[in-house]
Amino acid sequence: MLLIQNIRLSRILINTWRVDLIMIASCTIAYFTREYLIAHHFQVSAIVPTVLGTAIAFFIGFNNNQAYDRWWEARKIWGALVNDSRSFARALINYVDGDNTTSITMIHRHIAFLYSLKASLRGTVDEIYIKYLTDDDLKEVAKHKNMHNAILNIQARDLQKLSKANQVDGFRFIEINEMLVRFSDSMGMSERIKNTIFPTTYSYLTKVFIWLFVVTFTLAISDTAGIAAIFLGWLIGFVFVSTQINGMSLINPFETNSAGVPLNSITRTIEINLLQMLEEENIPEPVKPINEEYIL
Amino acid sequence: MLLIQNIRLSRILINTWRVDLIMIASCTIAYFTREYLIAHHFQVSAIVPTVLGTAIAFFIGFNNNQAYDRWWEARKIWGALVNDSRSFARALINYVDGDNTTSITMIHRHIAFLYSLKASLRGTVDEIYIKYLTDDDLKEVAKHKNMHNAILNIQARDLQKLSKANQVDGFRFIEINEMLVRFSDSMGMSERIKNTIFPTTYSYLTKVFIWLFVVTFTLAISDTAGIAAIFLGWLIGFVFVSTQINGMSLINPFETNSAGVPLNSITRTIEINLLQMLEEENIPEPVKPINEEYIL
Amino acid sequence: MLLIQNIRLSRILINTWRVDLIMIASCTIAYFTREYLIAHHFQVSAIVPTVLGTAIAFFIGFNNNQAYDRWWEARKIWGALVNDSRSFARALINYVDGDNTTSITMIHRHIAFLYSLKASLRGTVDEIYIKYLTDDDLKEVAKHKNMHNAILNIQARDLQKLSKANQVDGFRFIEINEMLVRFSDSMGMSERIKNTIFPTTYSYLTKVFIWLFVVTFTLAISDTAGIAAIFLGWLIGFVFVSTQINGMSLINPFETNSAGVPLNSITRTIEINLLQMLEEENIPEPVKPINEEYIL
Amino acid sequence: MLLIQNIRLSRILINTWRVDLIMIASCTIAYFTREYLIAHHFQVSAIVPTVLGTAIAFFIGFNNNQAYDRWWEARKIWGALVNDSRSFARALINYVDGDNTTSITMIHRHIAFLYSLKASLRGTVDEIYIKYLTDDDLKEVAKHKNMHNAILNIQARDLQKLSKANQVDGFRFIEINEMLVRFSDSMGMSERIKNTIFPTTYSYLTKVFIWLFVVTFTLAISDTAGIAAIFLGWLIGFVFVSTQINGMSLINPFETNSAGVPLNSITRTIEINLLQMLEEENIPEPVKPINEEYIL
Amino acid sequence: MLLIQNIRLSRILINTWRVDLIMIASCTIAYFTREYLIAHHFQVSAIVPTVLGTAIAFFIGFNNNQAYDRWWEARKIWGALVNDSRSFARALINYVDGDNTTSITMIHRHIAFLYSLKASLRGTVDEIYIKYLTDDDLKEVAKHKNMHNAILNIQARDLQKLSKANQVDGFRFIEINEMLVRFSDSMGMSERIKNTIFPTTYSYLTKVFIWLFVVTFTLAISDTAGIAAIFLGWLIGFVFVSTQINGMSLINPFETNSAGVPLNSITRTIEINLLQMLEEENIPEPVKPINEEYIL
Repeated sequence: MLLIQNIRLSRILINTWRVDLIMIASCTIAYFTREYLIAHHFQVSAIVPTVLGTAIAFFIGFNNNQAYDRWWEARKIWGALVNDSRSFARALINYVDGDNTTSITMIHRHIAFLYSLKASLRGTVDEIYIKYLTDDDLKEVAKHKNMHNAILNIQARDLQKLSKANQVDGFRFIEINEMLVRFSDSMGMSERIKNTIFPTTYSYLTKVFIWLFVVTFTLAISDTAGIAAIFLGWLIGFVFVSTQINGMSLINPFETNSAGVPLNSITRTIEINLLQMLEEENIPEPVKPINEEYIL
Repeated sequence: MLLIQNIRLSRILINTWRVDLIMIASCTIAYFTREYLIAHHFQVSAIVPTVLGTAIAFFIGFNNNQAYDRWWEARKIWGALVNDSRSFARALINYVDGDNTTSITMIHRHIAFLYSLKASLRGTVDEIYIKYLTDDDLKEVAKHKNMHNAILNIQARDLQKLSKANQVDGFRFIEINEMLVRFSDSMGMSERIKNTIFPTTYSYLTKVFIWLFVVTFTLAISDTAGIAAIFLGWLIGFVFVSTQINGMSLINPFETNSAGVPLNSITRTIEINLLQMLEEENIPEPVKPINEEYIL
Repeated sequence: MLLIQNIRLSRILINTWRVDLIMIASCTIAYFTREYLIAHHFQVSAIVPTVLGTAIAFFIGFNNNQAYDRWWEARKIWGALVNDSRSFARALINYVDGDNTTSITMIHRHIAFLYSLKASLRGTVDEIYIKYLTDDDLKEVAKHKNMHNAILNIQARDLQKLSKANQVDGFRFIEINEMLVRFSDSMGMSERIKNTIFPTTYSYLTKVFIWLFVVTFTLAISDTAGIAAIFLGWLIGFVFVSTQINGMSLINPFETNSAGVPLNSITRTIEINLLQMLEEENIPEPVKPINEEYIL
Repeated sequence: MLLIQNIRLSRILINTWRVDLIMIASCTIAYFTREYLIAHHFQVSAIVPTVLGTAIAFFIGFNNNQAYDRWWEARKIWGALVNDSRSFARALINYVDGDNTTSITMIHRHIAFLYSLKASLRGTVDEIYIKYLTDDDLKEVAKHKNMHNAILNIQARDLQKLSKANQVDGFRFIEINEMLVRFSDSMGMSERIKNTIFPTTYSYLTKVFIWLFVVTFTLAISDTAGIAAIFLGWLIGFVFVSTQINGMSLINPFETNSAGVPLNSITRTIEINLLQMLEEENIPEPVKPINEEYIL
Repeated sequence: MLLIQNIRLSRILINTWRVDLIMIASCTIAYFTREYLIAHHFQVSAIVPTVLGTAIAFFIGFNNNQAYDRWWEARKIWGALVNDSRSFARALINYVDGDNTTSITMIHRHIAFLYSLKASLRGTVDEIYIKYLTDDDLKEVAKHKNMHNAILNIQARDLQKLSKANQVDGFRFIEINEMLVRFSDSMGMSERIKNTIFPTTYSYLTKVFIWLFVVTFTLAISDTAGIAAIFLGWLIGFVFVSTQINGMSLINPFETNSAGVPLNSITRTIEINLLQMLEEENIPEPVKPINEEYIL
């Protein structure tokens, strides 16, 4: 998540330099082709780029809307994980009778669940979850492809134990199990967003149409604008391209980039909340922003 | 679901060649009609294709939005099936007292439910479900038109048996039954999307208007563009047509095509998760992409 | 629900002939008024119809979006009725101890509920519901204005009887009652869509603006287009009008027309599913399409 | 809620006459200012009103969408009150053992709750609720600012009494209480819509931009349109203004005007349904439309 | 929340003066650069600002829609807090047997929860919550970073005490705990909106594009408009800028500004409702608007 208000324009130019070169080359070719080959035969009237502009506006708008929706849905899912984690810990701390060892183990294991899920979504290796699991847990979890799902399974087994030992009654049992179901939902929803590729035809066609637009635009204005048409063609193309690239930076919200959902920071927040609820002493620090610029 | 980022433009041309021919023919006729019949009498001013362009932009935008929504809703429904299947298995494995034979049978039967539902949505014959059903189940299921609904029925009967045998109490009973209700919901929602035809008038009118647009566009620009008007008319028409066809490829998300929701892959993921939770040994492989291009 | 992909253009012309005549007359009057009265005094510049076109595009887009949303919401509500009906029958068949007479009666009565609700939404008289009600039920239901609500009331009474006879315990009682609450919700939501008139000012203003557009458009282009302006004016007007009429055909999704939600077909599907779950023998046929064109 | 399909245009003119006068005056001043002061110095090119038109189109579209959403949400909330009221009465009538006096009192009191809530939303004094409350209720309710909330409180107290007298068990208790929670939700959601003023800057800026548009539009076209520019300027302004006013008529859906949600009619419908479920004899008539034009 | 209908235009000018100066300077430079350097070489055709206008319209529309959605979601969350607070108090007052001391303490503590949450969202120090907490509560809460979460924890502990003392049974326990879960949800959802920065690239690119638009617009019209191009350039730029700034004023709905969600007023309303339900005597006054202009 970006924290700063003013991005440097240079950064955007750096992100788009390859596309910029292609556009400038295309505009130049278009300009000279027109100058020496087409000009005496026909004109590309302004309506051509205008209509193309409409089609592109639709495409870019569509892509941006869907990208933002994916990003915001991802943020909501992890917001729900925050809320449910607190309710889960609150229930285990306050509603379990007698010995609280299992409750503490379960809350620790839940933190491991979050770190494991986060690592899987980010596609990184994250060892923090190890310290929140017992040795038995670690052995069992290692057998599964989907580690976080395996952890939920152990949670359910412990909940059943609490129930059999009469530490929770039926009503409390369903309250706590409800949270496990919700964790399962949030986990699956995160995986859905991560694994579902946004239809690639949309971004592909957008690129093709922007290119067509830039070329016809240069052809249409070079009569009045002269050689400046190359510059103007690129300028307008740049506006479209940067809008498109900006939208696409949100399309995979779980990637480790500056625009993504700050999973590190959110997971740490839950960790701090839960450890404070357990009145533990070694509370880790919140995640620090990188270069005061963004937070992961 | 498409995996690759760069579709070849040729593929789009192959998908649209029939429409392309119609458009080129229409533009050619329009051009020569104007040249020899109309030019001395009146002009088609640029405002005609401009206004038509607006109407088409609305239509194509509308169609694309609704198509994407259907596709994403379909993906969400199958995401919910993933989550609920895991919660269902977790409950049956951990919350059922005593003998776990029925639990295992029910989890296997649930995999059969998914394969049967998938085959029905895809309109294909899929025999995988057979190996997850007992002979009695198979006989009973055969009597019903809606096989997956019949399977849910058997699940409910087994759940009642578990309850009567005191293997689950009332609280666990409602938790597990809640999952059956959710499966019923997801099943019905999938059928709704499959069976509800997107209003055909929308795509029909879009085609008519694109044709009208291409013709009036050619008439409007041929004064300045000369014979190139035919090419430009087709070019703009192609932009609209490919956008429309692209959107329509998502409208029936359960069809067996490269843009659809990857039911094979999702079903297999659930199968793997559930079999691992049962600690079985013969775990099938994940579904492989086809030509590294898409996954079904 | 329309089944065919290609509507004949003639049908659309038939639907709009009255509006077409009005538009052609208005264009003709506008053309000659301009020719003989206005032309020497002032010109209507192209910006007038262009701006009007924007306003109309918004209106038609807005109307179409809301119409489609009403139609899709209606379809979702009846999809929910499908799902809940199956869950309701599944619960009554499998979770009720002892004698199953009351369960069968309740499932039959539920089919009557659906037919009665359907008839009320369609504003038709439908006698099918009678055969699924007992004589006592029929007498009681006759006293109520809202027949389907009265049926739900009897269902609740029977459920209470099952509970008092210890055929269902408290947990099963709330599961089955939950379905009655959901039926009540779906029923009320259907009535809401049926009874809430889409703000009439929207379609009224759309008509006025289309008329204004057609007239100013004719005035604006007749300088260059000559007498063809009348034809072009009508053509563009026709595009707007047919788009608007198309959208409006979805605004009342429960009406008995070819674009509406196919209540007959959905109700029959539920009937078949439920009777098969009861293992009855006289299963009715699915509803057949009319002229292979649409299904009601 | 408007019932008729054809509003008279005169009514819209009456609603907008003040704005119409301002626009005509502005156009006239703009026209003559240009004629005598500006014409020889510079021209306002058509791009100025065109760009302004885009900004206005966005604003009006935005306002209309949000207004419609508020209106439709309000309608949904009161639809939910219909559904929940029926489920509440159904539960009280069928699921309460023994003496039904309290049930009847509670259903009557619920009708009072609806009339009281309606009067508060409409800002009117409505005495109907009095006849559905006992003297004790009236005294208690009088002490509270939020009368309908006080009524819900009494309902909860009576429900607790039913529970303590063993007339309802725990399962039925939570079913009926759930309805009280839902009434509380619908009540609060209605208050939210009533009390949250739509950001006034939106409608204010819309007015300013329409005025700017009308003036620049007149300046831009008066070269070609002559004195008719005044008329055309007003005409286009009128299109925007009437669209905006039309949208704004939905923004406060609980106001007592012809476009609002028909609370009188809905409340009466619930009243009739509930009294019929109680098999009472004096059933009031449905609310009649006013002048066959609208229903409140 | 703004209360007045007519904002003074001067206020908008005051809010935007810095941007206005930048725009006027840019237009002036553009004008004279063109006049003396460019005019004889090439023209910037009108299509350049037109296409840029489309891109900007999309951006501003997108920003405004997302800003409004955040604002309205924030309002809905606090509406839900109103509803749930009433249901929570209703349950504690009516459903708890025997001594009501704990109930009263819990309702007071809930008011403290709301004030503490509000202060945290607003980033202000608010001491009101102190008077609603006992000394023990205050000590415990002081240890936590997230004070409102700590308060929920104490509520859960007290609920468990009520349950152990048999003052509430299992059914009532889950009803009241459900409200704690909902408070936890609303709390987390508010924090999500507060902590998630709207992607800064959107507002940054909007600014860059508006600037590009203003400059190219001035260049494009100065041929016909002469020196008035500077004024017209600024005027159109002002329309875009004020629209953008207006939208952005809603993006952080929990900030203490005149456009934000009126947390003070909502919290006070809940306080009044709850104290009246407890029949207390010192009921505070509703929050007063500031200058009759807005309410915080």
